[in-house]
Amino acid sequence: MDARHAIPSPSASQAAMSESNRSHILDYLFRHGVSSRAEIAQVLALTPAAITKITARLIDAGIIRETGDIEGRKKRRSIGLSLANDTIHVIGVKFARSIVQIAVFDLAGTQLSLQTLPPVTERTIRTTLDQIRTGIQHLLDEDRHIIAVGMAVPGPYLRDVGRTAVVSSMEGWRKVNFLHEFAQRFRVPVFVEQDARAGALAHYLFDRTNTCEYLAYYLIGEGLGLGVIEHGRLIDGALGAATEIGHVSIDVHGRPCECGNVGCLERYCSAVAIHQEILTRGLVAGADTMNHEEACLALFAAADDGDRKAQELVQEVGRYVGYGCVTIFNMFNPRRIVIGDIVSQAGPRLLRAVREVVNERAIPELNDATAISLSELSTDSAVSGGTAIAITHFLEHPSTFFDVPS
Amino acid sequence: MDARHAIPSPSASQAAMSESNRSHILDYLFRHGVSSRAEIAQVLALTPAAITKITARLIDAGIIRETGDIEGRKKRRSIGLSLANDTIHVIGVKFARSIVQIAVFDLAGTQLSLQTLPPVTERTIRTTLDQIRTGIQHLLDEDRHIIAVGMAVPGPYLRDVGRTAVVSSMEGWRKVNFLHEFAQRFRVPVFVEQDARAGALAHYLFDRTNTCEYLAYYLIGEGLGLGVIEHGRLIDGALGAATEIGHVSIDVHGRPCECGNVGCLERYCSAVAIHQEILTRGLVAGADTMNHEEACLALFAAADDGDRKAQELVQEVGRYVGYGCVTIFNMFNPRRIVIGDIVSQAGPRLLRAVREVVNERAIPELNDATAISLSELSTDSAVSGGTAIAITHFLEHPSTFFDVPS
Repeated sequence: MDARHAIPSPSASQAAMSESNRSHILDYLFRHGVSSRAEIAQVLALTPAAITKITARLIDAGIIRETGDIEGRKKRRSIGLSLANDTIHVIGVKFARSIVQIAVFDLAGTQLSLQTLPPVTERTIRTTLDQIRTGIQHLLDEDRHIIAVGMAVPGPYLRDVGRTAVVSSMEGWRKVNFLHEFAQRFRVPVFVEQDARAGALAHYLFDRTNTCEYLAYYLIGEGLGLGVIEHGRLIDGALGAATEIGHVSIDVHGRPCECGNVGCLERYCSAVAIHQEILTRGLVAGADTMNHEEACLALFAAADDGDRKAQELVQEVGRYVGYGCVTIFNMFNPRRIVIGDIVSQAGPRLLRAVREVVNERAIPELNDATAISLSELSTDSAVSGGTAIAITHFLEHPSTFFDVPS
Repeated sequence: MDARHAIPSPSASQAAMSESNRSHILDYLFRHGVSSRAEIAQVLALTPAAITKITARLIDAGIIRETGDIEGRKKRRSIGLSLANDTIHVIGVKFARSIVQIAVFDLAGTQLSLQTLPPVTERTIRTTLDQIRTGIQHLLDEDRHIIAVGMAVPGPYLRDVGRTAVVSSMEGWRKVNFLHEFAQRFRVPVFVEQDARAGALAHYLFDRTNTCEYLAYYLIGEGLGLGVIEHGRLIDGALGAATEIGHVSIDVHGRPCECGNVGCLERYCSAVAIHQEILTRGLVAGADTMNHEEACLALFAAADDGDRKAQELVQEVGRYVGYGCVTIFNMFNPRRIVIGDIVSQAGPRLLRAVREVVNERAIPELNDATAISLSELSTDSAVSGGTAIAITHFLEHPSTFFDVPS
């Protein structure tokens, strides 16, 4: 017998089926808002008896609630069900290299609070970890509605180990085992995911303009990241380290990278690489005392003010971002690429340069079928990725968060 | 309401559930061979009544059969079920650029016949298409057990259109619409898939040593291709044009490619590129009258015979194949990369060069967790990919091939 197919016991199979039905109901309510039992039963092919039983237990557990009459099909009035959005909260944490943010969201994706920690350096990583633990504990003490913490960390994140394999330009983070530092520390579960994958989930869950099941989120911040949703599901790889576009070589004879590879895309268009180039070319006064994000934003402002040399650098960066887009086309053939994080704040000038490269170099049929845009999630929503991870786990495995009677 | 979730009728849902159960039973029998009803029922969490009903109808349809007593659990004798392997046949067709092969396989993956058509040139494409149609019709007339045709074609194949977007070095194929040429022509359905994706499926279905759900098949023939199985499912992209590693740039300042991109990997290590290099360096006598495969095989033989210049070229090619492997690591993080087709016949010398690059350039944690090997499916099994596509469709949607009583 094949080792891939372990035989579960019938009762385990039935429990899995119940959880699967619960998950489908919650996912439906998350995406469609208030809905009737009849509507949900029909979509999920459940009997009236089954839907009544399952929803009664979800109501008892406090996960969903009745919301009064709605107009159902054939104009008959029926009782609406909705998620208990306002009494289910999650914490999202974003680790970039020097930037750490902690936010609380409700289940509808509304941001309830946001704090940004002091900038992190190689020497303050341990202090930062303490601050995060204290911050999370404080939030959990204050808000009993919080059910989970989701953390977005730089990739390549080794999911089972709990550690990022390479953090270019800030190797101290490599030594941090996120699972050791945070799992089992709080009254709620903690989930950790590669940042761009978290960002892809955030766009999939919270961007109401998204109706696309083939979506790539292309994060260009202090590092580069990519998250790809293929037919409604994240591509994650055997170790959880897939879609690492930052360390894909665009020039096998190019700049060496700390990961061991040569010509990594990250070495040409990350905020760190741009900051270095700003200093080399002397484009922004005082850039040597700025952090990477500040220096990039000053450059983009100078370009918008008509500084030709600043415009040239933005144009060059845009071309490298574009080379990455062409590779994303050829590797993942998404319907939509959303560019986000620090570098996306260069705005339309960057997007024009990206499209110029794509028009030159992409296979025309793929170019015609793929939209490229800048992220429209609010800027503070850098942490919404962490939140999206936690919410996805909740929607998939509700009984691990709530005591659902079986 | 979200356009993504069309509401099926309850009867449509139930029909889908029945088909899903049939598919799971067939898939189980395909992977595990002779099995008892009790074993299948337990794995799939079906009731004894349900398994009896479904298997009775599959037996009536001639898809499975009873095979006499087997020893079940608790040493009780029970009746075995198996797929009707010997009376279910499929045709597999492989289109490379100059090479077309047509084979018949049974459901167990045993090759029953193989024919190779005369070499194809730009001018003989239409003749070749006629030969394929005639050949398939002849096989169908002779063998009533054939239930489907699967075709493996070069990518980027646009699934819904039926056409390949770019066929470097033989653009005539671009004008061929495989769906127009072959669908609806025969008494059986025809399925078309990108060749390397078909190859990945073949390794997933037929390679009994494979126990891996994160598998990449890296085809290096007249063109380059990649097929990636992620958690047991092919990555295919919105248009079916994902995993096109041949047109991923490894040098944005490198050699221009017919696809519009610059520095495409295919320009450095395909059989076409190698043949060109053999001619430029004068490495093989008479190479100008050989086809690409013959020239490559002559080069590999010369290298094995101790020819230093031939060895150098194999080494260089291996390095480019290795750059591709590093990119596959970073983009897909598979557990296993299988290198196949013409260039894999360079053997251990090539694999050493690949591993040298990977050891230098891959993220160590990914390198440690990923096996790279040469394909062990027999050489003639170039067409087994087409076969694997047809069998996969049959296992997933049996009622579209057989009249299964409901």
